[in-house]
Amino acid sequence: MPIAEFDVIARYFTQAFPKRTDVILGIGDDAALCTVPAGMQLAIAVDTLVEGVHFPRTTCAQDMGYKALAVNLSDMAAMGATPAWMTLALTCPQTDGAWLKGFTQGLLELAKLYQVSLMGGDTTCGPLTITIQIAGFVPPDGALQRCGAQQGDGIYVTGTLGDAGLGLASIQKQVILPSQTQQFVESRLNRPTPRVAEGQALRGIASSAIDISDGLAADLGHILEASGVGASLQLEKLPLSRALIKHLSPEKAWLMALSAGDDYELCFTVPHQKEVALQKALPNYTRIGIIESSPGLRCLDAQGQLFRFEKTGYQHF
Amino acid sequence: MPIAEFDVIARYFTQAFPKRTDVILGIGDDAALCTVPAGMQLAIAVDTLVEGVHFPRTTCAQDMGYKALAVNLSDMAAMGATPAWMTLALTCPQTDGAWLKGFTQGLLELAKLYQVSLMGGDTTCGPLTITIQIAGFVPPDGALQRCGAQQGDGIYVTGTLGDAGLGLASIQKQVILPSQTQQFVESRLNRPTPRVAEGQALRGIASSAIDISDGLAADLGHILEASGVGASLQLEKLPLSRALIKHLSPEKAWLMALSAGDDYELCFTVPHQKEVALQKALPNYTRIGIIESSPGLRCLDAQGQLFRFEKTGYQHF
Repeated sequence: MPIAEFDVIARYFTQAFPKRTDVILGIGDDAALCTVPAGMQLAIAVDTLVEGVHFPRTTCAQDMGYKALAVNLSDMAAMGATPAWMTLALTCPQTDGAWLKGFTQGLLELAKLYQVSLMGGDTTCGPLTITIQIAGFVPPDGALQRCGAQQGDGIYVTGTLGDAGLGLASIQKQVILPSQTQQFVESRLNRPTPRVAEGQALRGIASSAIDISDGLAADLGHILEASGVGASLQLEKLPLSRALIKHLSPEKAWLMALSAGDDYELCFTVPHQKEVALQKALPNYTRIGIIESSPGLRCLDAQGQLFRFEKTGYQHF
Repeated sequence: MPIAEFDVIARYFTQAFPKRTDVILGIGDDAALCTVPAGMQLAIAVDTLVEGVHFPRTTCAQDMGYKALAVNLSDMAAMGATPAWMTLALTCPQTDGAWLKGFTQGLLELAKLYQVSLMGGDTTCGPLTITIQIAGFVPPDGALQRCGAQQGDGIYVTGTLGDAGLGLASIQKQVILPSQTQQFVESRLNRPTPRVAEGQALRGIASSAIDISDGLAADLGHILEASGVGASLQLEKLPLSRALIKHLSPEKAWLMALSAGDDYELCFTVPHQKEVALQKALPNYTRIGIIESSPGLRCLDAQGQLFRFEKTGYQHF
């Protein structure tokens, strides 16, 4: 597609992104201009998706657009931040308008839902790579960090774990699922739900938080390392969807929940004295373990036996 | 290189980036946290460099790191903004520590010079693609935009034009230059000087500004379009380095200055009544033409004859 056509489409879709009152000058100049609400801090994160690495080559354009923003919104969720603006750097092979239209539709769907403005864009020619940088607001001392977990804190997660992993196995034909189940788990992989509202609700309640992108064991591991603590998990407490329970043995389901990535649920810790506040703040969550002083992560089955597994999170290289 | 080693190197170099007092939480959590100075607006831009598209495959790692930040600093310069923070999304093939070390050294050189903090990073595996997002501060109504040029305004540029174009021709062996000249023009291509101080000095003086990334004709064209005006350029006024004057015919030198990209000088317009202020604000600049009401760009030679040329700026697709 010639650059002229690409430009027209890009501009056309740019119009559709949410307008915010804190944006003084939108996309189209050398930089965009905006203002941060008085007294608020700015939270900034960046995430890249590469075709064939972060999503299968068969993924449709809409899902790519959706997921590229979802994983960044998930970073805002994990900080307890309110998302506001994003920039998009899109590198793609010479491509057709239909692909770009689909990609932008998927992106727009989430951008509208969370009122995120597109503040800058760069489209370049090359192998498909999508980088979104996102910025949001958080009140002073309100941010959820990884380093605050303390001995005795409960460990919690939102949603169910391992669905995206089963979705990937389904796409890769490692498992054959009934059509409805297949749809559910593949949608969990391609269209994860960023827990933005949950993250904001946990401000002042959670002692630490992270989003689960590389698998529970790896990501909880980051909290443990940053906080200088250890943890015990009760595997039978892990929240599993009916899809996992029905189609995997308990051991395989636990493994999927612990070590498959892409769930984008939140994992967080809450001190005992904040448990009542937690009950009021979040309608749904699951307690899966407890923070301990002894370093390392111990995963225990219903009999209190240590569950050993090798793979600890997705290795990007 | 295994991920573990890559991580160690990435972390090691992260330590070396400038620390700023407005950064509350640096790289390493789900997002970084920072504060914008009271009353200041935030300017945000993003630029991607793809190997083989934006720089030749022979470019060394240091120059890639340097240029990736330089082109983003140039966007801040073109807005009159003071750069503050950046994020880096680096996609590279399985690579060696030496390359990453070189890349980071080049990046650090400019980051230290302009006190830019690294606020977020994502390293992914894939074909070499470097995306930097930059943010800086600008006082309310201080930003230089593209849309303010008016009939009668003078048109100015910083530095000399066309050197990067000659540098690319030299690297591609389309022209054979003496070694010192070759070094000069290739350095202008690989290590452009972002005109950050000049951009800030032009606040309140320039009626419009842009940085020259795609060639003077194309980038001045953006000012004309955004401002709804036209312009005449006097080609014999174009600032040319001795390298261009000595090794190209006047016509070829003009063509290089007008249509080769990557100079990263500023092109700006100044109303007549601000010319004295301009003289005080900038030590070096060149007046090359005048804004007119009639749309389009007219390039005139010393005899007042229209100079016709075809290529108008680098086409990314």
